[in-house]
Amino acid sequence: MLSEDDLVAVIAAVAGAGGAGVDVGIGDDAAVLAGGIVASTDILVDGVHFDSGRHTVGDIGHRAAAASLSDMAAMGAEPLCLLAAFGLPEGFDDVRALASGMAEHGVPLAGGDLSRSDRLLVSVTAIGRAERPVLRSGGRPGDLLVVTGTLGGQAAGGYAARVTPRIAEGRALAAVATAMLDLSDGIATDAGRLAAASGTGAVVELERLPRAPGATVEQAAAGGEDYELLAAVPEGAELPVPVTVVGRLTGDAAVRLLDAEGRERSLRGWDHFA
Amino acid sequence: MLSEDDLVAVIAAVAGAGGAGVDVGIGDDAAVLAGGIVASTDILVDGVHFDSGRHTVGDIGHRAAAASLSDMAAMGAEPLCLLAAFGLPEGFDDVRALASGMAEHGVPLAGGDLSRSDRLLVSVTAIGRAERPVLRSGGRPGDLLVVTGTLGGQAAGGYAARVTPRIAEGRALAAVATAMLDLSDGIATDAGRLAAASGTGAVVELERLPRAPGATVEQAAAGGEDYELLAAVPEGAELPVPVTVVGRLTGDAAVRLLDAEGRERSLRGWDHFA
Repeated sequence: MLSEDDLVAVIAAVAGAGGAGVDVGIGDDAAVLAGGIVASTDILVDGVHFDSGRHTVGDIGHRAAAASLSDMAAMGAEPLCLLAAFGLPEGFDDVRALASGMAEHGVPLAGGDLSRSDRLLVSVTAIGRAERPVLRSGGRPGDLLVVTGTLGGQAAGGYAARVTPRIAEGRALAAVATAMLDLSDGIATDAGRLAAASGTGAVVELERLPRAPGATVEQAAAGGEDYELLAAVPEGAELPVPVTVVGRLTGDAAVRLLDAEGRERSLRGWDHFA
Repeated sequence: MLSEDDLVAVIAAVAGAGGAGVDVGIGDDAAVLAGGIVASTDILVDGVHFDSGRHTVGDIGHRAAAASLSDMAAMGAEPLCLLAAFGLPEGFDDVRALASGMAEHGVPLAGGDLSRSDRLLVSVTAIGRAERPVLRSGGRPGDLLVVTGTLGGQAAGGYAARVTPRIAEGRALAAVATAMLDLSDGIATDAGRLAAASGTGAVVELERLPRAPGATVEQAAAGGEDYELLAAVPEGAELPVPVTVVGRLTGDAAVRLLDAEGRERSLRGWDHFA
């Protein structure tokens, strides 16, 4: 069974070598097109990413849009619009609540498509613009790893709450960050993604993770779904928004999660696909 | 039961009144953003838009990309990239063939997302650029209605074949067309959409429809899935690509399909959602 990252690698291999209009293709939080246009697609399926028996339709729309908008935040981009594709099961007709939940982010829904499907599903594309898109790949050994907000709140809270994409924070951090991504799967997985893209190693000090109320260290590191930003910033850089330093990039290839005693811990973030 | 057009109207009502960056929102073939960026999303679901028991995985990828690229053609846009969201049933791992089918159009696949789902589904977003995006809404009474290629081939052929989005034709027609869309559901439905958006009526002369080999008049008018372009052009305009004149826009609000004897026929195009 291939992991999501493996499958993405397969797709990237046949995706075409970019084009005149594509500056950054598969592998970052969003594609970067000429003129600083950035675009990202996410798909959320009932029973996988949300639970229509437990979440309201408005919450589902809100969350679906948040996933793609968080990718805009991770690029340091200003969102311009959303496009949505809905798969609607027989008898579901509350598209008004679905679209209203999406619209609560204040980003216009500029287009979309509808189909019947067995389960409710929402695929959202966000398109934005960034003066200087921040990739995952610009981190350098010695850069500090910083995170916005608190972590583990979604895992501790049963993945019930709405999340707020860190758009303003991402745009501010873009002025200093060498690399950035959004923490959708947990820093235990996502710090490794940033380090791998940057060709560095990483150390994350678990004790430093800003834990949400009630969250364990494990939830903060591997619970996923927090949609906070993880950025690499040069040591001494003036930080434009409140962040917490949680580790740094290193010159070797290893990604290490260290506990308070400096012992290495083994934790894996969430794989939606597994 | 609401139709797809009804549901789209519900969504448009809550989608937000556009924004600084959105020139054209829901209701056209694609959204138009500042700088002539156009973007469109389509979703294709197994058993609704294709049949994984009958179509190859490569054909499915090709078709999914064609749907969104045809929207670029309908705007007169040059496609810059595709983004894809795949819903993959347990045991399906041929993402290579899916992505390869998409890549055959020669437009780079710049990003995407994966999820598990019950049925195979592909949601594709195309992003392009148009110097002068052609909307559905610019048609004027007296304009000729013209179509590219031939119609009814998909219905006559059992919806088996790959389709070629009319990118070059769309870009050429953009120089003269007052309104344009792609014929996804059949001219019997789509001519009405163009006329409604333009605030005109329309007459389509069924006898003039360029029928694909083996296609009946009904298949040419209402079979759907041909992905040819329907454009309104001022009478006397120099046409830059081969097209067939099939009718004209009128000053009243009626949309009439006339047979060879001038009698009105009642035909309805395909509604994927019904």
